[in-house]
Amino acid sequence: MLDIALIGTGGMMPTPKRFLASAIIRYKGTSILIDCGEGTQIPLQSLGWGFKDINNILFTHYHGDHIGGLPGILWQMMLAGKTEPLNLIGPVGIEILYGLVSVVKRLPFKINLISLRDLDKSFMIDDIEIKTTPLFHGEKCLAYSFEIKRLREFDPIKAKELNIPIQLWNKLQKGHTTFYDGREFIPDMVLGTERKGLKVSYATDCRPSTSLIDFVRDSDLYIGEGMYGSDEDLPKAKEKLHSTFSETATMAKKAGVRELWLTHYSPSLTNPKSFINVAQKIFPNTEIGEDGKQKVLKFQN
Amino acid sequence: MLDIALIGTGGMMPTPKRFLASAIIRYKGTSILIDCGEGTQIPLQSLGWGFKDINNILFTHYHGDHIGGLPGILWQMMLAGKTEPLNLIGPVGIEILYGLVSVVKRLPFKINLISLRDLDKSFMIDDIEIKTTPLFHGEKCLAYSFEIKRLREFDPIKAKELNIPIQLWNKLQKGHTTFYDGREFIPDMVLGTERKGLKVSYATDCRPSTSLIDFVRDSDLYIGEGMYGSDEDLPKAKEKLHSTFSETATMAKKAGVRELWLTHYSPSLTNPKSFINVAQKIFPNTEIGEDGKQKVLKFQN
Repeated sequence: MLDIALIGTGGMMPTPKRFLASAIIRYKGTSILIDCGEGTQIPLQSLGWGFKDINNILFTHYHGDHIGGLPGILWQMMLAGKTEPLNLIGPVGIEILYGLVSVVKRLPFKINLISLRDLDKSFMIDDIEIKTTPLFHGEKCLAYSFEIKRLREFDPIKAKELNIPIQLWNKLQKGHTTFYDGREFIPDMVLGTERKGLKVSYATDCRPSTSLIDFVRDSDLYIGEGMYGSDEDLPKAKEKLHSTFSETATMAKKAGVRELWLTHYSPSLTNPKSFINVAQKIFPNTEIGEDGKQKVLKFQN
Repeated sequence: MLDIALIGTGGMMPTPKRFLASAIIRYKGTSILIDCGEGTQIPLQSLGWGFKDINNILFTHYHGDHIGGLPGILWQMMLAGKTEPLNLIGPVGIEILYGLVSVVKRLPFKINLISLRDLDKSFMIDDIEIKTTPLFHGEKCLAYSFEIKRLREFDPIKAKELNIPIQLWNKLQKGHTTFYDGREFIPDMVLGTERKGLKVSYATDCRPSTSLIDFVRDSDLYIGEGMYGSDEDLPKAKEKLHSTFSETATMAKKAGVRELWLTHYSPSLTNPKSFINVAQKIFPNTEIGEDGKQKVLKFQN
């Protein structure tokens, strides 16, 4: 069970009705925040998931509307009594965040700044596998995906039939071949068929690209850029290296994702819902992201 | 005519219904912003006075809730096409703002960081005389006052009767004694009686003090700390070095101000209006400050 929530859905600047694009993912007590523009602490406070358990903040890039709320988040974490280290993770250039971190004095927890130099490598945060891919944007900018692998089902009746010692069950369940008492035990002896895990991908601030389509492929939920609702804004999207609803819906379709949420709206797009048909015509399972929108993703079998 | 607006009225942290305490003063095209906590750009944008003409930001102190919105303000100024230098002015320690300024790249205007080392000196920003006084708070924290002096009325009929050369009129009007053509010309020859100017004072984050009462004396508008509405919160106010409605109203009364606006409310004070009687019982001309509240102060005669 993976919880996902959009914190804010605005691009470029916060407005009285929409905070800046940010999202949070939670799995088995691990919370990961993605981006934190100015004001993010306000909707994050309203969400009620707390600040203390966030040990990782991922940054897509370092434009102001994605980083300016960091001091406020740090203050809230301090108020919440956080003591565990906080990792700030993002593309090369993360040293820019020193400036924002330095204004908060006497932090009772350590901060690690981690640059992702090899963008094709994945990394784990607890049980969540995180992958990145560079986006087609003005500044070095990343998409993130979050995958929860699902273990194959363990069959204890079969294990008993095969006289597999109980102390090996856990290793086999995790997929490790084991030698014990002169015998070889392989996972296939006691595990069922492969089971689908969960995948969420998050990509704002980009033009469409084939590498992004590959990257979000088969996502249960793809949270994608919705800077402009109308197709008439395509020239603007091209010029400013953003995307339209149609373009993102087309990527969702090509990538065979299960569901698309649009986010990261231009301040000029006051009512994104009025353009939902534009996206749904191409990819029916599109939803308009809103500040605070939540979903629980469950394993399918 | 002096325009004054409260941008936000919250203390400690922004909430979905209240932005952080900040105010703006405008006189003859000069706009001065006081404090800018996280999110200040949002209500400041709603106010509609623009970002370009703000050439000075005064900081009362450097707690997070008074400085965190600086990067956002700088981005808005950049978007608005600002090119004139921006002065960031506050008590000693202003170097902390470097961190916030440094995250905004390619600013098209110069930034000057100005420490107020001599707190008993006043300074001018265009036609506005600004004074400061230290407040009784945990960190070095300042109150600000803004005074517009009013020139004595110039009497051109008298000037003509006295054969005062027209090229001296302007100097005399400004109060300067002048020697010309073997004669002495003194302002009293052509100026009427003294005229009352305008005074606005701004003091958040403090315990009451006699020096503050002296400082705000005779203000047309005193914008004062309203951290706690109920008298029952007095112990908390003392502990945290803030003030209650009653305490600030008592200062307003002792200082003989014309009008009091309360601001800088605790996040726990969800409905400040429900405590207005507490303040008005002591100082009847009290108003509850709200985000966006505005007033135009005019000369009295």
